[in-house]
Amino acid sequence: MAIETIKWVSGCARIIDQTKLPNKFEYIYCRDVATMWQAIKRLSVRGAPAIGVAAAFGVLLGIQKFKGQDKPKFLKLFNKTCDYLATSRPTAVNLFNMLNEMRAVVAENPKADVPALKKLLHKRAMEIFKEDQKVCRTMGDHGAKLIKNGMKALTVCNAGALATVDYGTALGVFYSAKRQGKKFSVYSCETRPLLQGARLTCWELLRQKINTTLICDNMAASLMAKGQVDIIFTGADRIASNGDTANKIGTYMLAVLARHHSIPFYIVAPRSTFDLKIKSGKQIPIEERKSDEVTHFAGVRIAAKGVKVYNPAFDVTPAKLITGIVTEHGIIHPPYVKNIYENLPTR
Amino acid sequence: MAIETIKWVSGCARIIDQTKLPNKFEYIYCRDVATMWQAIKRLSVRGAPAIGVAAAFGVLLGIQKFKGQDKPKFLKLFNKTCDYLATSRPTAVNLFNMLNEMRAVVAENPKADVPALKKLLHKRAMEIFKEDQKVCRTMGDHGAKLIKNGMKALTVCNAGALATVDYGTALGVFYSAKRQGKKFSVYSCETRPLLQGARLTCWELLRQKINTTLICDNMAASLMAKGQVDIIFTGADRIASNGDTANKIGTYMLAVLARHHSIPFYIVAPRSTFDLKIKSGKQIPIEERKSDEVTHFAGVRIAAKGVKVYNPAFDVTPAKLITGIVTEHGIIHPPYVKNIYENLPTR
Repeated sequence: MAIETIKWVSGCARIIDQTKLPNKFEYIYCRDVATMWQAIKRLSVRGAPAIGVAAAFGVLLGIQKFKGQDKPKFLKLFNKTCDYLATSRPTAVNLFNMLNEMRAVVAENPKADVPALKKLLHKRAMEIFKEDQKVCRTMGDHGAKLIKNGMKALTVCNAGALATVDYGTALGVFYSAKRQGKKFSVYSCETRPLLQGARLTCWELLRQKINTTLICDNMAASLMAKGQVDIIFTGADRIASNGDTANKIGTYMLAVLARHHSIPFYIVAPRSTFDLKIKSGKQIPIEERKSDEVTHFAGVRIAAKGVKVYNPAFDVTPAKLITGIVTEHGIIHPPYVKNIYENLPTR
Repeated sequence: MAIETIKWVSGCARIIDQTKLPNKFEYIYCRDVATMWQAIKRLSVRGAPAIGVAAAFGVLLGIQKFKGQDKPKFLKLFNKTCDYLATSRPTAVNLFNMLNEMRAVVAENPKADVPALKKLLHKRAMEIFKEDQKVCRTMGDHGAKLIKNGMKALTVCNAGALATVDYGTALGVFYSAKRQGKKFSVYSCETRPLLQGARLTCWELLRQKINTTLICDNMAASLMAKGQVDIIFTGADRIASNGDTANKIGTYMLAVLARHHSIPFYIVAPRSTFDLKIKSGKQIPIEERKSDEVTHFAGVRIAAKGVKVYNPAFDVTPAKLITGIVTEHGIIHPPYVKNIYENLPTR
């Protein structure tokens, strides 16, 4: 693939600065946890699975300069680091799930001393990194079964290599289908306000020579009415135990439109994006971001001065509008309340 | 109101250059028909009713330098001018309807000589201008009956003073309701790609001290799910005799979403936006515009290089999704096939 979104490189987390794509390809080298926190906050690294890996690497950055053997002091720093990273963004549950994975290392090794814990935490972070690579390829292969020759698929935001370590969730489905020699094309919604579809998804798909057409978000309905969309795949930021799914703002719109036009609508997300502790999407906190993301572009004002702005970064699609959820454990269908528990490991 | 979108000023059509708003308020002085054609084409003047008036003024610009009494020569120039203006944009029927009004002046006065025809055409253009002012206020008053205190309305694109001579269609409803002392608020969809909602509608509504909140187009569904939208008003570019309505891209999306959330969805448009010669929306030509409207903003590339773009400027909302059509002759309800004919004059 050769898109290495996030990678641990000699004591440093190297990430692609996605705020600069597609015009510039630049790395950010995070050498401390504050730099990683900022990178997550400002969306230099984004996409729920990538944020999960970034959080695990962030923990390593937070503890790696700790000297000595004082375990209470170490644990204090460790917990402070985890708590701090948890404040970077509220919606994608992978962030919290991966911090919990790191916390579990400490909880499950009560007798380990500081150097041993450091080693175990480093090992777990690297496992989280590798699991993402493996899980995305497995999900992609499951989802690719849904793609038939000649299909026109639609996606929103970026659920690709840039949203994971290097392969993607929804776009991973396209990569697997392409590898299998299937012929299909993809419509990419530009995804206002930060244009992850136009900037990132189109860039990724064109690199893989996938037939890609960019549309504005408000054009999807019209395409559907013309019979130009056969199937929809999106990623997810958090899936409740009943299947309600938070994802990039605009996803719910697509799900309603898909239902109106009888188009299958699939979520593609790993186990780490599920939040089995919550019963429904109503319990998912939705991040609201600053108004200047909507009122300005590249420093240029694009809206009338003084106007109020509503800028939620995500919306929640109710389970009843979702045809299936593609996971590394196979495709889960309704009734989700039953099938999510039966198909997914509880941790 | 003091927004004079288009005005005839001593032998010249003065228009507000809407491509510059809201950052700069500048007039364009059209002294020849080519300047007017360009102004329509590049959306310096836009909005179906305003384009209709611009076309009538364009005819005056085309013929005003004609010297002499040679009627065949004059008619050749007149017809050439009308045909030329008709090529500026394909969807808004007001353009063609107002050119037909001007042609009717010539047809209905076969004995008039060149100076008399020039005078009659000038008179008709000024009537078209004044009719728009009157008709918009009447429509606004009809539509304002639908606004109740505390309501949250939603609109898309700009169907305001800037889309007409000086009052608006959908926004005219808000101006009338405001004048009647009603309390309500408005969500404005930004309207990609050219952001007429963010740039023009917010600017207009804030000038009138109307409580306005800007959203990206893909946020409307989420607002509706939260019960934050009570009613939707949009303008129109062409309404077929069965009620199918072409309007700015994204309108059809709103209509489908409104139906899903049981929200009333109204079109506001004058008689001059109806095309009673066509049976359904399938016969409405939809303008596709250049890809750089989507891939670039203010000269900055915002999409991956080389990506294909689909950029339709309009979509068609089927009549069955429209709660009512507010016209200067009252609010027309389904069944439209019957009620449009019964409520509107045939010319």
